[in-house]
Amino acid sequence: MPERNRQVLLKRRPEGMPVPGDFDIVDAPLPEPGTGEVLVRGIYLSLDPYMRGRISGVRSYARPVEIGEVIEGRVVGQVVRSNHPDFRAGDYAFGGYGRQLYSAVPGNSLLKLDPAEAPISTALGILGMPGMTAYIGLADIGQPKSGETVVISAASGAVGAVAGQLAKRQGARVVGIAGGADKCRYVKDELGFDAALDHQGSDLGAALDAACPNGIDVYFENVGGAVQAAVFPRLNDFGRMIMCGMIAEYNDKTPRPGPNLGAVVRKRLKIQGFIVGDQRHRHGEFRAMAAPLVKSGQLKYREDIVEGLDNAPEAFIGLLQGKNFGKLLVRVGDDPTR
Amino acid sequence: MPERNRQVLLKRRPEGMPVPGDFDIVDAPLPEPGTGEVLVRGIYLSLDPYMRGRISGVRSYARPVEIGEVIEGRVVGQVVRSNHPDFRAGDYAFGGYGRQLYSAVPGNSLLKLDPAEAPISTALGILGMPGMTAYIGLADIGQPKSGETVVISAASGAVGAVAGQLAKRQGARVVGIAGGADKCRYVKDELGFDAALDHQGSDLGAALDAACPNGIDVYFENVGGAVQAAVFPRLNDFGRMIMCGMIAEYNDKTPRPGPNLGAVVRKRLKIQGFIVGDQRHRHGEFRAMAAPLVKSGQLKYREDIVEGLDNAPEAFIGLLQGKNFGKLLVRVGDDPTR
Repeated sequence: MPERNRQVLLKRRPEGMPVPGDFDIVDAPLPEPGTGEVLVRGIYLSLDPYMRGRISGVRSYARPVEIGEVIEGRVVGQVVRSNHPDFRAGDYAFGGYGRQLYSAVPGNSLLKLDPAEAPISTALGILGMPGMTAYIGLADIGQPKSGETVVISAASGAVGAVAGQLAKRQGARVVGIAGGADKCRYVKDELGFDAALDHQGSDLGAALDAACPNGIDVYFENVGGAVQAAVFPRLNDFGRMIMCGMIAEYNDKTPRPGPNLGAVVRKRLKIQGFIVGDQRHRHGEFRAMAAPLVKSGQLKYREDIVEGLDNAPEAFIGLLQGKNFGKLLVRVGDDPTR
Repeated sequence: MPERNRQVLLKRRPEGMPVPGDFDIVDAPLPEPGTGEVLVRGIYLSLDPYMRGRISGVRSYARPVEIGEVIEGRVVGQVVRSNHPDFRAGDYAFGGYGRQLYSAVPGNSLLKLDPAEAPISTALGILGMPGMTAYIGLADIGQPKSGETVVISAASGAVGAVAGQLAKRQGARVVGIAGGADKCRYVKDELGFDAALDHQGSDLGAALDAACPNGIDVYFENVGGAVQAAVFPRLNDFGRMIMCGMIAEYNDKTPRPGPNLGAVVRKRLKIQGFIVGDQRHRHGEFRAMAAPLVKSGQLKYREDIVEGLDNAPEAFIGLLQGKNFGKLLVRVGDDPTR
């Protein structure tokens, strides 16, 4: 076991698209777990689009990462040393902190993972925050009815892939939007969406018209930008727009204009945003629904695993450019369960 | 009793702000009530902002008025001749049709009015579609909680005045936005809003900051344009935007851009539109709540009454320019109840 920690720090706030020089990668002493705390060796670190907001310094629903601090992020790992009665060395757990090899965190912030129930990495993806985001957005805002048409952007991503599969299970016609032929093939053939449209194609509007002959009832928004502009005018009366994220705009230096809201009145649209962190108390409800479906193979997922902490900045930049294919993880340590 | 009808017809579709030449005023034969129908002599004709959409020819939630047709509109009047068992000559009723002196309409589309309950003109205003619009928007979308801040645009108008008074009754801090000092004085001193801001003033944003020290929780949107642009960035987390209308944009030849929707995610906003006509079945519920409050003077209202059918086009154009002060009506015949 190494004696030293290694961390990715925020060196300066990115201007537009982040560059590797916005981050520092440094060695640091091993953290010492305090009373009630646990020392966790990271195995998988999660890279998620929301982190772009956290390093921007803009006031939002959460405190920003400050210059010189470890980049925020969820971790799946293994307990090295425990000062908490519920954990002992060797336990697998979700809930370490940050883009680093080791972290000392309160034991009561951890969730013990059973590798027999599901691969431990899924606690960062389909059974974690991204999967629950898909579930909450559909349950609380989209509420698709059988036979309705649901469009999902970033459909091969960690959230979109789950949202589409859940909407299918609720009887909706599901159309995914993704970048490139490989992702579209995956969305349609592997995940079972009714159609998949390539936003890199020539005319997304025409493709939506063809794939959604009855218009669009629910739009699960992960992307913004040109995709939002193509979907919005095609929403049906009483359409719902689940505002989950707008990754295509996260690096804009000035915000783009949005759609004219006159249609919201005429069509009685609902445009509603949500943050999954507001719903932490429903994690049990979500996991009870989703874990059996993952185990039985009825809910499919795909992971894009990058090796080594030092590759995290580049992988994160790739995520913001749509280069990942599936839930993006960084493996920073040996996974004895695989 | 005159032998002839007189009507305002759509002569051509307005380009931008309507002009008097977009309308024809013509004499016509008296309509003949068919089986089950009633001949209604109009007393008050309603002029409402939504009519701008109906004469634009744009597909919407309702069929447009075609060239050469009578302009749509609600009417309060008196039964002249009845082929329906529930009505007889002399009855007062809500529900004639269109910008004309006489109309023949199905008896089962009429609502009999009791002048002892409330002035019959209120069936077009505070106890009619505009009042119910305010009620539905607050009940179904805004849902202000006690102590929250509610901002209402077009606050002296037929909808805004009711919305503000109802929100006050629900314990909210209510800030109105209106055009000009007279309307603002009325909103604050007569209607009892906590504050009234003049959108013709120099800096609406600064005025909102001063009047809403705790931000804005609910925005009742009747206006759009610069007022919307000032309110939107001041919405609090979990803010609700009741999308009722955007009168400042109804004459735009091309739609203006709207707000960037990134804030909808970050702040978990809800932006939702509605059309009161979808909720006709709740008219009884609304009237049972509102009529006693009107009778007791607890809900105040103001009417802006223009005399004579031939003045309707100019009055309607004035409505779109914000020149009316209170619910705009055209009196086209003698009101024996006043």
